Amino acid sequence: MECSHFCSKFMPISEPARMETTCSTQFSSFRPLVDVKHPKFTSCKGISPNNIHVLKKGSSSVEQQKLGAADLVYEISGTNSRSLLSRNSRILDAFDDEYGGVIVDSERLPANKYVFASMLRFSVSHWKAKEKKGIWLKLPAEKSDLVPVAIKEGFEYHHAEKGYVMLTYWLPEGPSMLPGNASHQVGVGGFVINDNNEVLVVREKYSAPAFVGLWKIPTGFIAESEEIYTGAVREVKEETGIDTEFLEVVAFRHVHNVAFEKSDLFFICMLKPQSTRIMVDDNEIEAAKWMPLVEFVEQPLIKEDSMFKKVIDICIARLGKRYCGLSVHRLASRFDGKISSLYYNVVDSYDTNCIGN
Amino acid sequence: MECSHFCSKFMPISEPARMETTCSTQFSSFRPLVDVKHPKFTSCKGISPNNIHVLKKGSSSVEQQKLGAADLVYEISGTNSRSLLSRNSRILDAFDDEYGGVIVDSERLPANKYVFASMLRFSVSHWKAKEKKGIWLKLPAEKSDLVPVAIKEGFEYHHAEKGYVMLTYWLPEGPSMLPGNASHQVGVGGFVINDNNEVLVVREKYSAPAFVGLWKIPTGFIAESEEIYTGAVREVKEETGIDTEFLEVVAFRHVHNVAFEKSDLFFICMLKPQSTRIMVDDNEIEAAKWMPLVEFVEQPLIKEDSMFKKVIDICIARLGKRYCGLSVHRLASRFDGKISSLYYNVVDSYDTNCIGN
Repeated sequence: MECSHFCSKFMPISEPARMETTCSTQFSSFRPLVDVKHPKFTSCKGISPNNIHVLKKGSSSVEQQKLGAADLVYEISGTNSRSLLSRNSRILDAFDDEYGGVIVDSERLPANKYVFASMLRFSVSHWKAKEKKGIWLKLPAEKSDLVPVAIKEGFEYHHAEKGYVMLTYWLPEGPSMLPGNASHQVGVGGFVINDNNEVLVVREKYSAPAFVGLWKIPTGFIAESEEIYTGAVREVKEETGIDTEFLEVVAFRHVHNVAFEKSDLFFICMLKPQSTRIMVDDNEIEAAKWMPLVEFVEQPLIKEDSMFKKVIDICIARLGKRYCGLSVHRLASRFDGKISSLYYNVVDSYDTNCIGN
Repeated sequence: MECSHFCSKFMPISEPARMETTCSTQFSSFRPLVDVKHPKFTSCKGISPNNIHVLKKGSSSVEQQKLGAADLVYEISGTNSRSLLSRNSRILDAFDDEYGGVIVDSERLPANKYVFASMLRFSVSHWKAKEKKGIWLKLPAEKSDLVPVAIKEGFEYHHAEKGYVMLTYWLPEGPSMLPGNASHQVGVGGFVINDNNEVLVVREKYSAPAFVGLWKIPTGFIAESEEIYTGAVREVKEETGIDTEFLEVVAFRHVHNVAFEKSDLFFICMLKPQSTRIMVDDNEIEAAKWMPLVEFVEQPLIKEDSMFKKVIDICIARLGKRYCGLSVHRLASRFDGKISSLYYNVVDSYDTNCIGN
C-alpha cells in the first residue's frame, strides 16, 4: 500500500472533475495500490447496522450463506432481493482501505446471487451511513453471475483482467475520486549496429501490404512488470538470436488512441551487439540480417517518413558521439520502498561515449 | 485501424506464450486498434451455418430478436439456451477484423439473455468452423446480464472501462494471440525554477504522515490522450496558478506493481516560469511558494533519498548547462497516419542551452 500514501485520489475531499488525474506524489505518479489479493487493511468482517443486529444473532456468515443458497425459492422477478432482505440482512465481508473506502472481500462472497443482491444493497446503505467513500468490488470470473446484480445496485466497471472484473461505487456527492485504469501500453525497439556499420534488421512474416519487404529494427511490447532495458534486449534476442547490451534510450514516441482508446509510449533503445550469428524466430520473422546502415536508411519507407528519418538521424548522431541518450540507473526510494529504474544522461562521468559528459 | 497493420498479434500463427508481448512495428509498439465504436470491417451480418439455413428463412435479425424477447417462456434451468436453440439458430451480428477475427456488433445484441445464450453458442461454433481466430465481445453496462452468459460460453474478460466490459474468445489451438490490456499509468512532475534560483514547491493538503510538511514539486497523472509536455504545464497551473513553458523531459522513472499490478512511468519535466503570482488550488494543496533551491535540497526527505537526490542533481546540472534532456517534437508518420510527440535531444541546433549541441 506504499504508493497509496502518495495519492490524494482517495482522500475525503470533493474536487472538480478536472482533478481526476491529479496525484500528489513527489517524484511518483503512483495511484493507490488496492491489493485485493492480499488486503492489508483492518478487517470489518461481521459488522452490521444496529437496526438489524438481532437478525444475524447466532448465525455465522457461512451458515447464512448455506441457508441462502439452499432454502431459497428462486423466482424470476425484480423483487427477489427485496423478498430475501429479511433472511439476509448482513453486511458483506469487507476491509477498510486507508482512504475511508471499503474493499469487499472477494473470497467471501455469497454463493447465491439473490443473497448477494440483498447483502450488497444492505452493505451499500450501511457504508453510506458510515460515510465511507469508494467501494471496491472484485468479482472473479467464476462469480460472473454477480456482475449484473452489482451493476443494478449502481456499481460501475473500473477495469478487468483475464480472471476478474473490478467494479466500484463512489458514495459521496461529487465526482469520483477513485483512481482510473491503466492508460498506456509500452513498446521498445532495438537499434543494434556492429563495428562494420551494419544494422540488425528483420523482415516481418506477417506485415501490412504497405510494409511488405521493409527491413526494420526488432520491436515489441514489454511484458508485465518488465523493464524497458531488458525488454529491448529480449525482443532482439527472440527475433534474431543476437545477444545485446543495453546502452541508452535515445528517444521515445508518445501517441494516442491506438488500442481501445489507450495511448502508446515507444522507447527507441541503442543496443550493443554481443554476438554475430543470426537465428531467426520463424513464428513472426521471415528474415533477419546485418544490413549496411546506408542501405537501411535508403529504404524509401524510411527516408520518406519524417519520424523514422529523425529517429535514424538520432541513432547515427549517437554513433558519432554527437548525441546523448538516457542510460538506466537502478535506485531505491524510501517514498514507496521500491527499487526503480531511473533513466537519465550520465552527468559528470566519463564512462560513456556521450558528448554530454 | 492503421496500427493494426503493424501488429502480428492477430495474425493466424501459433506462437509460444512468450510471444504474447511481441508486436511487429518498425518504430511503434501499437497494438491492433479494435474500434468497436465505429468498426471499419466487412459486415457478416446475417451469416448462418448452412445446416440451419432453413430455420432463419424469411425472418430478419430484428424480427427474430422481437420473437425471442416476446415469446419465450423463461425457466430457470441449465437448459434454456439449448431449449431455445431451434427458435434462435442465428449468428450474432458481427464484423470481420483484419486478422481473421470477429467483432460482435455490440449495438445489435439480442435484448434477451436466453436468446443471446443460444445465439452466442451457435455463433462460436460457426466461427470455429470458419476457422476464425479471436472473437471480441463488448458488453455495455446496460447489458451486464449477458456477462455471465458469455463467461459460461467460454469467454474471458479482456478489459473494462466505466461503461462496458470487453470479453474475448481465442478459437484456435495454442495460446491466445490477442493483444493485452493497457499496462501502464503515466505521471508527470514539473521542476520550475525562476531567475532567483527559487523552485516552485507545494505542500500537500492530504499527505501520508511520513511526508507531512514536505515541500515538493507539483505532480500528477496525465489525462486520457494528454501529452506529457502539456500535462506537466497543466498540473503546475492547477496546483499553483503559475504559467510555465515546457523545456525538456530531464529524466523518467519506471516502477512496477503500483496499482492493480500495473506499472508506472513518471516523467520529470523542466519547465520555465511565465508568471510569478501563486494561486493555490485549495482542493489538494495546503500551500505553494517559491523556495530557494538550497532550502529545497536541504529537506531531509529529499537529501536522504537517493532517487530524489539524483533527480534534483540532474535538474541542477541542467540549469548549469551540464546536462541535456529530451525536448519534444511533433512529427507525422505515414506508418500509422498519426502525428505523435517524439522526445529527443536537439542535435545540430543551437536553440537550447543544452551542452549536447
